[in-house]
Amino acid sequence: MKTPVIDALQYCNWSRAIFEELRAGGVDAVHVTVAYHEELRELIGNLSQWNRWFAEHDDLIFRGLSGGDIARAQDTNRTAVFFGLQTPLPISDDLGLVEILHQIGIRFMQITYNNQSLLGTGHAEAYDSGLTNFGREVIAEMNRVGLVIDLSHAGPKTTFDAIEASARPVAITHANPSVWHDVTRNIPHQNLQALVERGGMLGFSLYPHHLQGGSECQLSAFCQMVARTAELYGVAHLGIGSDLCRHQPDSVVQWMRSGRWVRPQPPLARFPKQPNWFQSAQDFEGIREGLIKVGFDSEEAGSILGGNWSRFFNASFEPE
Amino acid sequence: MKTPVIDALQYCNWSRAIFEELRAGGVDAVHVTVAYHEELRELIGNLSQWNRWFAEHDDLIFRGLSGGDIARAQDTNRTAVFFGLQTPLPISDDLGLVEILHQIGIRFMQITYNNQSLLGTGHAEAYDSGLTNFGREVIAEMNRVGLVIDLSHAGPKTTFDAIEASARPVAITHANPSVWHDVTRNIPHQNLQALVERGGMLGFSLYPHHLQGGSECQLSAFCQMVARTAELYGVAHLGIGSDLCRHQPDSVVQWMRSGRWVRPQPPLARFPKQPNWFQSAQDFEGIREGLIKVGFDSEEAGSILGGNWSRFFNASFEPE
Repeated sequence: MKTPVIDALQYCNWSRAIFEELRAGGVDAVHVTVAYHEELRELIGNLSQWNRWFAEHDDLIFRGLSGGDIARAQDTNRTAVFFGLQTPLPISDDLGLVEILHQIGIRFMQITYNNQSLLGTGHAEAYDSGLTNFGREVIAEMNRVGLVIDLSHAGPKTTFDAIEASARPVAITHANPSVWHDVTRNIPHQNLQALVERGGMLGFSLYPHHLQGGSECQLSAFCQMVARTAELYGVAHLGIGSDLCRHQPDSVVQWMRSGRWVRPQPPLARFPKQPNWFQSAQDFEGIREGLIKVGFDSEEAGSILGGNWSRFFNASFEPE
Repeated sequence: MKTPVIDALQYCNWSRAIFEELRAGGVDAVHVTVAYHEELRELIGNLSQWNRWFAEHDDLIFRGLSGGDIARAQDTNRTAVFFGLQTPLPISDDLGLVEILHQIGIRFMQITYNNQSLLGTGHAEAYDSGLTNFGREVIAEMNRVGLVIDLSHAGPKTTFDAIEASARPVAITHANPSVWHDVTRNIPHQNLQALVERGGMLGFSLYPHHLQGGSECQLSAFCQMVARTAELYGVAHLGIGSDLCRHQPDSVVQWMRSGRWVRPQPPLARFPKQPNWFQSAQDFEGIREGLIKVGFDSEEAGSILGGNWSRFFNASFEPE
């Protein structure tokens, strides 16, 4: 069977048109965000909406729960949709809710989203005090039940602590090395080193704020960065987590940034323009060609486009 | 009218017997905890229970909302019961809930309880990163609506940041100086200095873990500590916040400690024995005598037993 194509992070304004783009792009599995700032009750509402989409578009998508669902997607020409939270808010301060999340189909959870959470510190805080008392308990429980620790928006100390505390490999589903583009949302060398030493995965982001040159970043520059990252950390730890927010209105980026924790002040946030070579899920094959142009062989390019995530998904979603 | 007696923190296993003790002790107002680890829905349930107590025992207690309710309590020989949260969990990540809390009668809120919260760091964490981004927003909003910032369980940097960030004086409702008894729950000199410089209040705790000598602490030692604290920071900033947990079963201290954020391991926590000179609210007059014995005049003793809190309550509960 062909090596699957996997996108380890999308948050689109979902519709049949976008599900068709996933199919046209040959995307076998996608990790989608089902909560940014939502509490448990609101998350459940979002899952209910996903159930309606699965029922209405079952020729294109289905809910992914195990690594085996990637092969099932390939067998049935559909895309397996795996759920993740960008925030731990739905568990509140209740350790018992970690297992409940896994039982309702969640497979990834960020330790924190930009700001401080009850588990750890986000990249946007002035000081990062690392993993909290509760954070340590939650990581052990996530390891136990098979919920992947995602550190994409964590601060450097929290990232380091979480990698060290986790008995299972963790993921940074959508970010780039800060040595390439130095914004707090990208990841310092020391964190990447620790990540791969413990078997973790990095998904390269295609969100303009994470790219050198922003919306004007060229495909060749992106692929050269991937090549340098592979030299430093090994190709086996790399994948894509595009952070694609297809067809989202600007109100959504405002919600991501400010939630309801601050009174929004003008100017309100706006989505940046995607680079012309990554507008939708249909553009994955262009990335494959770009990777081959900078020197990857076709097996390596395939591992970056999904083979590595496939192995990680297979190892991560079952209870210990 | 006599200077009122005010206890700035109790969490008893409430019953008519305890309300009668408040009356027998001449306590005109008490700040009671209505949430430790509860979320908004659970908090509302606790308030509903208080409504039943107010209806059943309206000859002894009523709900306190404004500073003027202290005089009303004295006029009607009852105790005004003011509500406070030891946790910010009920507001979750929603700035708009701060005003809602004030509207449902909450007058105090701790920035954090032992561990990290979304607002700041508790004294029990290994690192204290101070007030968070959201914490700054919440403090400004608490100032605006008239909700008192309580820092009793915060870490030293968070305490310092919160005092500095608050435009209105803040409270440490129940703790003692750590120079007297050095546990992380007591308060370092630098924090007390900053507190009183900004017009804040300290309520001395009578909970054995906060006392030098624990359950065996003598009244004279406690009163001598009060006298030294008054010399350092001025008598006008001092009151009592007994932290009395009258008639509570040990399951409650286990809940306070561990909530649902950790799997409790034996040995389970137990309440310590109260010192023999402070068993219930009936023992306030003994403290007054003790204060006079160590050199306070009767006006000073009265200000510590409630006059200072009365002034603070009057200045704190109205919107800006």
